[in-house]
Amino acid sequence: MENLTQPLMVAGIRLGTVCAGIKYPDRRDLVVIEAAAGTRVAAVFTRNAFRAAPVTVARVHLAAASPRYLLINTGNANAGTGRQGLADAEASCQTLAELTGCTPLEVLPFSTGVIGEPLPLFRLMAGLPAALAALQADGWEEAAHGIMTTDTRPKWASRRQTRNGREVTVTGMAKGAGMIRPDMATMLAFIATDAEVDQALLRQVLTEAMADSFNAITVDGDTSTNDSCVLLATGQSGAAIPAGGDEFEQFAGMVREVCRDLAQAIIRDGEGATKFITVQVEGGRDVAECRQVAYAIAHSPLVKTAFFASDPNWGRILAAVGRAGLNELEIDRVALHLDEVCIVREGCRAADYTEAQGQAVMARPEITIRVELGRGEATARIWTTDLSFDYVRINAEYRT
Amino acid sequence: MENLTQPLMVAGIRLGTVCAGIKYPDRRDLVVIEAAAGTRVAAVFTRNAFRAAPVTVARVHLAAASPRYLLINTGNANAGTGRQGLADAEASCQTLAELTGCTPLEVLPFSTGVIGEPLPLFRLMAGLPAALAALQADGWEEAAHGIMTTDTRPKWASRRQTRNGREVTVTGMAKGAGMIRPDMATMLAFIATDAEVDQALLRQVLTEAMADSFNAITVDGDTSTNDSCVLLATGQSGAAIPAGGDEFEQFAGMVREVCRDLAQAIIRDGEGATKFITVQVEGGRDVAECRQVAYAIAHSPLVKTAFFASDPNWGRILAAVGRAGLNELEIDRVALHLDEVCIVREGCRAADYTEAQGQAVMARPEITIRVELGRGEATARIWTTDLSFDYVRINAEYRT
Repeated sequence: MENLTQPLMVAGIRLGTVCAGIKYPDRRDLVVIEAAAGTRVAAVFTRNAFRAAPVTVARVHLAAASPRYLLINTGNANAGTGRQGLADAEASCQTLAELTGCTPLEVLPFSTGVIGEPLPLFRLMAGLPAALAALQADGWEEAAHGIMTTDTRPKWASRRQTRNGREVTVTGMAKGAGMIRPDMATMLAFIATDAEVDQALLRQVLTEAMADSFNAITVDGDTSTNDSCVLLATGQSGAAIPAGGDEFEQFAGMVREVCRDLAQAIIRDGEGATKFITVQVEGGRDVAECRQVAYAIAHSPLVKTAFFASDPNWGRILAAVGRAGLNELEIDRVALHLDEVCIVREGCRAADYTEAQGQAVMARPEITIRVELGRGEATARIWTTDLSFDYVRINAEYRT
Repeated sequence: MENLTQPLMVAGIRLGTVCAGIKYPDRRDLVVIEAAAGTRVAAVFTRNAFRAAPVTVARVHLAAASPRYLLINTGNANAGTGRQGLADAEASCQTLAELTGCTPLEVLPFSTGVIGEPLPLFRLMAGLPAALAALQADGWEEAAHGIMTTDTRPKWASRRQTRNGREVTVTGMAKGAGMIRPDMATMLAFIATDAEVDQALLRQVLTEAMADSFNAITVDGDTSTNDSCVLLATGQSGAAIPAGGDEFEQFAGMVREVCRDLAQAIIRDGEGATKFITVQVEGGRDVAECRQVAYAIAHSPLVKTAFFASDPNWGRILAAVGRAGLNELEIDRVALHLDEVCIVREGCRAADYTEAQGQAVMARPEITIRVELGRGEATARIWTTDLSFDYVRINAEYRT
């Protein structure tokens, strides 16, 4: 549904996508993103200790220079590959730099795919000239295809606003369907704007947008080794974003909406997903404990299989709340709703709840689980999927 | 395989099992265990905040009196049932007390089954006279059947030693196949000995035995609302256990072995399990961080589906180690073995590892994952299962 409209072009950004045969022949698997000179870049990366070689290299390059090119491959994660992996990631940047006349530090590498296999460096390098020849401003849709792995559909989102007579555009794309419980960022997401944004401000906008988007989703609790999210601001629209006030809020809102659209698209395309589940926890002492409860629910295989079965088996949700590790949780203050249906009040089944009500809610493709803890004012909200036969099939057959 | 031998009788213990129709007709679902006067009892219970009514009642009774009867039903967990659930659990104890001439405080209630449904108290009470009439010293096997839910086979274990001319026997039974990540105890386990053991010592023996058995297993990370483990010492063998020394160690060893047999039997019978997986983490700074890494591996759906597929997809194991949340983990010190095969050395694929070696190991029904962290002397070991189509099927069809 997020793909009914085309992604909007962003002035100063061109994208080129080719089939380089990284893992399979005739599959789009190599993407180059070119950013105009003067583009500012903010990025966040996985906190997984086994971060992939390109993540390490991208962090070093980002600290040293302003990126001009992003180099993305699928089919191979270049993770668990030790020193050779680092050398390969550097070599790929070097090659792109030679072809374009920039320095290797101005290239950020990104990889996604199987872990632990050596990067097929030669095939990657051989694909670069064609990728550069393919660069075009309306290359977003092709590129969104080019970064897919087990994704069943490409994911992009766009927002556009006019401010002081100047149009500002934000467009992003993302990939990810499994090994998804981002810890800083989803597997790969690239967002660009033509607004002119100060570097520190850009970082702030990205960090805030993450909290309520990529950092609020989980498919299977497995944080990837390659999570990366990049926000580029080319400044080509001529609209400068101030450090605060309405204009800042509107711009930050656009970025947040694009990130949330992409994050939700990842969940809708979660491996084997048949349901889109919002977990909302209210009445906690702080946001951290609300998130703790929300993730205990979202990661419970028993809760997830009950949703797959459309079975209003609410006892499993209560059991997950109870094992979330909150100190001094008073269960007779806990309430549970599925959408508009109150199932649990004061810690046990609501007197007016009927199984028929529960079944009616569970039959829906999108469901909100709302838990009231009754011990504070904090809330948190995350999005997740059910656990289906197809999740098992996909992950028993596919090698990430 | 644990059932090739019969459970050994324990002097002073009788068990009676009947079909009370708690949830289904003609299914053994009500068990009474009678302990001789003077029996000492130690017990541990779930730490899930949504603990079931019988858990609350059993804790109160245990603090007030020495138990003579354990009353166990399957088919209904009496959890999430509020005040009515507490009243129902008390009423069931009251009825058994009247039938046997003891006080209600001398009865401990236990329930397992679907959460959130009212306990069918009348059917339970109606079954008690027949259960009492069925009491017999060799009732362990029947009782082990009587406490099953999604279990595919009964689980028991026995040990016997002769000490100073007196035989000491330890026999236990357990149930549990899903919603298994015990936090204090597995769903239900009952262990009895005819040794004479001081109350404080009995508690110590149980606590130590738990650490390396029921508290070291996980099927799905979902701690149940009803976990309970009870150790009864009737003293009828006449062998008194001293507070230390070889005799104590040998007795504690028997209890530990029975607990471990039962815990491993639960994993072997884990919902949908096709593999028995030992996760051993070595070289940690302390046991807590070793367990943290072990559970991150054991709970990873991606690791579990790879084992189901017999796919040596070791990158998923590394990714789980990396996201386990250890501070300052140096990945180039990490090693990974599957059984005798070294796959990862110094953080990346071992030079001499071949895919064929990995496939050969993964084809085995029992596999040990051994992770070396290289930052200390601590170790931890847990047991878990893979994640199969059948896990999803069972939990999509069955209402816990």
